[in-house]
Formats: sequence, structure tokens, C-alpha cells
Amino acid sequence: MTGTVYLVGSGPGDPELLTVKANRVIDEADVVLHDKLPGPEILGSIPEGKREDVGKRAGGEWTPQEYTNKRLVELAGEGNTVARLKGGDPFVFGRGGEEAEHLAKHDIPFEYVPGVTSAIAGPGVAGIPVTHRNHASSVSFITGHEDPTKDESAIDWGALAETGGTLVVLMGVGKLPMYVDELLSAGMASETPVALIERATWPDQQVAAGTLDTIVAVRDEEGIEPPAITVIGDVAATRGRVVEFLRNGPESEVARK
Amino acid sequence: MTGTVYLVGSGPGDPELLTVKANRVIDEADVVLHDKLPGPEILGSIPEGKREDVGKRAGGEWTPQEYTNKRLVELAGEGNTVARLKGGDPFVFGRGGEEAEHLAKHDIPFEYVPGVTSAIAGPGVAGIPVTHRNHASSVSFITGHEDPTKDESAIDWGALAETGGTLVVLMGVGKLPMYVDELLSAGMASETPVALIERATWPDQQVAAGTLDTIVAVRDEEGIEPPAITVIGDVAATRGRVVEFLRNGPESEVARK
Repeated sequence: MTGTVYLVGSGPGDPELLTVKANRVIDEADVVLHDKLPGPEILGSIPEGKREDVGKRAGGEWTPQEYTNKRLVELAGEGNTVARLKGGDPFVFGRGGEEAEHLAKHDIPFEYVPGVTSAIAGPGVAGIPVTHRNHASSVSFITGHEDPTKDESAIDWGALAETGGTLVVLMGVGKLPMYVDELLSAGMASETPVALIERATWPDQQVAAGTLDTIVAVRDEEGIEPPAITVIGDVAATRGRVVEFLRNGPESEVARK
Repeated sequence: MTGTVYLVGSGPGDPELLTVKANRVIDEADVVLHDKLPGPEILGSIPEGKREDVGKRAGGEWTPQEYTNKRLVELAGEGNTVARLKGGDPFVFGRGGEEAEHLAKHDIPFEYVPGVTSAIAGPGVAGIPVTHRNHASSVSFITGHEDPTKDESAIDWGALAETGGTLVVLMGVGKLPMYVDELLSAGMASETPVALIERATWPDQQVAAGTLDTIVAVRDEEGIEPPAITVIGDVAATRGRVVEFLRNGPESEVARK
């Protein structure tokens, strides 16, 4: 009897931001296959006996996706109920789509369990709504970490600038100078508000704010490091108007001092 | 003593997709201020004595945002802990940003509690990942229901088409013919896969699939009605490759027959 694989989103890191369903599925699973992204608090709450880390190999290298795919099929084929636990939502820059296709190709039933994405929650806990009736009728999420085997970037920063909506870059704090340049070249105003949110909802969450002109220097001064979210657009200025009354996370404690 | 307002996302509708934190905040709140969007299952589970519906007025008209803003300040001013419960995530086309600014302006402390957005979970339960390493390095969420008092649409469909990423339109099944035309005029291929997901994660969830060329006819044949999500892009074709093994929702039961 083939087991079912659950592709489960763990949210941005705060264990209270798991869904009721994610908790139930983790509870009922025989094996929880995970990488490092769900974070130490969530992983630490899962019994060690049923955890299997596919995030790193013994040698310290990253596990190729092929190994994870193969392991999912193996475990389900042996009749296990498997929770494949991923940071954020499994279908947002998480290779959940590739895993779903691989499972279907091998006749393994699967279910998708959505999670809170840090692309929205990250700006949110910093007091920044990704959309706003007056400032942003659209929001685009972009990966700052494209497949390195691609010859050419598939990201058209000019077109993204043209949309006039909010831009949120995931895993993009390293390449910040590159796309800041691209957006400025595309004609985006240098005073456009920008914010960086490091480890959103984690106990050591950090927020830094500036403009398209200043944000690279701000990043360096404040020491913002991966994993972090970049949010670009008029909505990023909301933070300044609300932060005194915002009760999310440790950084707001600091801001209130 | 002023109370705190929690801006809480209830997710797409399935009560199991509430976060642990949302449930705790609802439990601890003195008053839960809500509209209809969280859906009957979630609203029905909250004690009637602490629920207050700001979705409709006695006369059947929609409550202006001004009333909700005023009521939040009033209730918190009286010392109540208030949960402002919204469908999906409070900061995705939910006016949560406006409410946060209004609260800060009136010296009311508030906390944001993110939720699972139907913009991601809707396509997901239909077997569609909004991003894919090979097909989509970005995804844009667009409102199909702009502020009707605006003179001109702020949405640049041409630029959105140019991004080459996935497009997800919320509350956009009514205006489908309008933006299908805009996207075709902007040069998007007529065979681009499109899917519509009505009442994602609700017991009566429905999915319909087609292409940019056929989707308006498909909508009419299948009787897809609001509230529904539109997903446009190569990722929408994933559904056909996985649906036989997908175990999400009632529509997948039908697909497997």
C-alpha cells in the first residue's frame, strides 16, 4: 500500500504561524523530510526519531533535488505517510512544483498544505502592507536566487519596474546592488522607499529601511544578512507612519525605545 | 487602559488553514470584528456573543471603511482586545494597511497576524505552483477589483505581461474578458495556460482550466462565479500533469473518477 506525501509549508519561522493542518499532518506522519528553512524552533519541536534532514549531505554539500525526489518516492513506496516540510509555502520558490510532478510521475498520491509565505509576512511584521488601495494595485514576488545553471536571467527588472506595483525580492539581499542598479536604469525613482527584513518572525528579526538610492549603504551599515526579504515601493514608507504602535517582533521593541 | 487591535488573517476558508496564532488571538479577544470573507465555517466556530459583523449594514449596503476604522478605535479605546478578522492575509488587498495607519494615528497599539493567502493556496490546491524553477522566476498578484472611485486604472497589463512571470488575479472573474483582451493585445500567446479556482479550500471548491484564448468560454460553460482566483502562465499547465494524484479538495475527487 503506497503512502501519501504531504507537501507542507511551515510558514516564516515562528512556530505559532504553522497552520492547524500543518501541525496535524506533522503529528500523523511517519517521516518528516525537511531542510534547514523551517528554522530551529519548528524543527526542534518534531520528535527526532521521525525527522530526516535532506538539507545537507554528510560532506557539507547541499543535497541535489534529485536525491530528495528519490527519497520521497522510496519512503511513500514503503507505505509511509510522509510530510515534506518546507519553509514558507511549498509552491513559492520552494521546488514544491517539481516534487509534485515527480510524485505524480511515480504514481504517488500527494496533498498540498499551504503555508504563510515570508514574502507577505516579512514586510507585514515590519509594518508594511504589500498592497494598498492608493499606492499599489499589484505586488510581484521575485527570486533573488535564480537557478545558477541558467545561461541568462529570466527576470526582466525593467518590466517589473514598469508595473508600478510593489516588488518583493526573496533571498535577494546578496544581489541587492545588481537589481537596485537595474531598477534605477529602468527609470524607477531614486527616492522610492525600500525596506529589508532579516529573519522575519524569528527571535532575532531585524529591519532596515532606506530608499533605492541609500539601501545598499544601509544594508552594509546595519549588517543585514541572508535570509532576508527586500520590499520596494511606496508601501515601504508605511512603516515610518505606524512603527511606534506596531507590536510585532523584537525589532519593534527597539523601534519604540 | 487602551486595548490592542490584532489584524488577523483567516486564510482561504478551510478552518484547518488558520494559524495557531490566529486561533489563540480569536480565543483571547473580547470582540471579533469581521466581514463575510472568512467564510461560514470559520465564523460559525466563534462564539456569537463576541462577533461583530462590519461586512454589511442593516439596509444591506456595504459598510464604508470609515465605519470599520471608527469602530476599531472605539472598541480599543474602551479597553477591549480586538481581533479584526479578514479573509486570506490582512495586508493583501484587504485594506489592512489603511486600518493600521488609522490605528497608529489614534495611538492604538496593534499587531499583525499573517494568514495563508488564497492567491497562493488557490492555485496550489488546484495543483498549480505559482512559481517554478524552469517556468516562472516571478509571480504577480493583481486585484481585479480596483477602487471604483479611481479615474483611471493603475494596472499596466502590458508591463505585467512583459514580466514573463505568473499572473494571479484576485476577485477578477467578472472582469476576465477585459484583462484577457489586454494581455492578448500586449502580445501574450493565446495558448498561454489559464486556470480559474472558485472558493478555494471551501467544501464546494471548483476548478476550470483553459488557455488565454478559451478561458472566457470555459468560465461561462462551467459557471465559475466569484469569489474566484485566476492564474495565468505556463505553471497553470502543471495541473494536467499532476491532478490524477492530487488529494486536495472535492474537485480532485471528481477529477479522479
